[in-house]
Amino acid sequence: MAAPVYDAIVLFGDSITQAGWTDSAFGAKLANVYSRKLDVLNRGLAGYNTTWALPVLEQCLERGPQRSKTRLIVIWFGANDACIKPSVQHVPLVEFIANIKQMVRLVQEADPETKVILITPPPVNTQQRKEDLESREPPIMTIDRDFEVTQQYAGGVLKAGADCNVPVVNVWVALWQAAGNKEDGLRVYLSDGLHLTRAGYEVGLDDSPTKEADQRTIKVVYDALLERIRASHGELDPEKLPSVFANWTEMSA
Amino acid sequence: MAAPVYDAIVLFGDSITQAGWTDSAFGAKLANVYSRKLDVLNRGLAGYNTTWALPVLEQCLERGPQRSKTRLIVIWFGANDACIKPSVQHVPLVEFIANIKQMVRLVQEADPETKVILITPPPVNTQQRKEDLESREPPIMTIDRDFEVTQQYAGGVLKAGADCNVPVVNVWVALWQAAGNKEDGLRVYLSDGLHLTRAGYEVGLDDSPTKEADQRTIKVVYDALLERIRASHGELDPEKLPSVFANWTEMSA
Repeated sequence: MAAPVYDAIVLFGDSITQAGWTDSAFGAKLANVYSRKLDVLNRGLAGYNTTWALPVLEQCLERGPQRSKTRLIVIWFGANDACIKPSVQHVPLVEFIANIKQMVRLVQEADPETKVILITPPPVNTQQRKEDLESREPPIMTIDRDFEVTQQYAGGVLKAGADCNVPVVNVWVALWQAAGNKEDGLRVYLSDGLHLTRAGYEVGLDDSPTKEADQRTIKVVYDALLERIRASHGELDPEKLPSVFANWTEMSA
Repeated sequence: MAAPVYDAIVLFGDSITQAGWTDSAFGAKLANVYSRKLDVLNRGLAGYNTTWALPVLEQCLERGPQRSKTRLIVIWFGANDACIKPSVQHVPLVEFIANIKQMVRLVQEADPETKVILITPPPVNTQQRKEDLESREPPIMTIDRDFEVTQQYAGGVLKAGADCNVPVVNVWVALWQAAGNKEDGLRVYLSDGLHLTRAGYEVGLDDSPTKEADQRTIKVVYDALLERIRASHGELDPEKLPSVFANWTEMSA
């Protein structure tokens, strides 16, 4: 028996994607809103940078007629590529951008109808990251990420998106603004200076003028992604997609 | 691009399965615990009885070599079949049992390696259901489900499981015990007398002798299903299954 009679949305990324099904995070929320319509698949690979992820993507590609299709792939890398030397996870910025662009190209070559959305890595809270690393057994005394470097990699995703003409959800900016543009303000949104808390998956900036500053919250990763899907690929709006199998009231007619 | 390079667990049922991805319910939890290992797919069909669901199952079946397989299908019907006449959702008990057995047979014929687990429908709180129906616009004044009838359909699932020699997770009994064997005690676990609340997806009876009566809670649907997977199909224990793609630390070696 094969399950994929539904088309799919694939969330392809690192640990921040992999954890997207915990505690009602964005993956679980998307799977719920697309129920009866599309499968939302977790292709998060904790610790992976784009260099390691590229051959995984190639293994996932199929050409020719398919029983079910990937309608959308969301590519969210950078948090590990932005590790600073001598980390083995480090990928030079130029290579990172080339890798993201190569991923987009591979997807589009395999099936020109598959849509692509990119997401920028979240900002890093280096003080919080340092505390986390030093609290480990044994303690790690060398910090592996840098605020400005990760910001550059977020910029790299924007550049790749512009070069490939695919939309980008700027989670870096949304979280940074939600944190009041202060690294320490990120503590609410990051569990260890790197990974997202539930608030991190949910809370971002809603800058509609009627909102008071302390009420400026939206569910950023989920809501921003869904908003981007609706704006760029309206045919994938969950409210517009038909159910694969008929509503029960039609069965009894 | 085709996503299904991971094998799958399919949750096949009615609205109680379909809602399994809301608010960290059992589907989302399973998808999380199986991340990197298996996809957990929502094949919940709100309102469906087994008679309508059978042809859906047949459309999902594929024979011959597959790139990815369904390792386990969880079949959870009965809540709608147990509707009382003249409801169009009603399926006679004998036919319901035959349908469940036919589903098991279809899965096993298509791929003898696919495992099957059945789940019994939850108990109904008829008073709560009556209140819900009467509160609608326009009010529905005829109750569509009966406590004892649904109990018989839960028994029907047990019979089908015994006849087909496949394991059954008895959610009916777990919730009934958690409710103190009182229909009114089900209000915590049912949102409208029929569908599960978050507590309904989570809370069941842990009758270990050391526990005080008021502490006897476990996450029934999720925990009981996972326990059944481990006991009956140990190779599908998420802790024993290998990841499809290597851990990142192996990539950097």
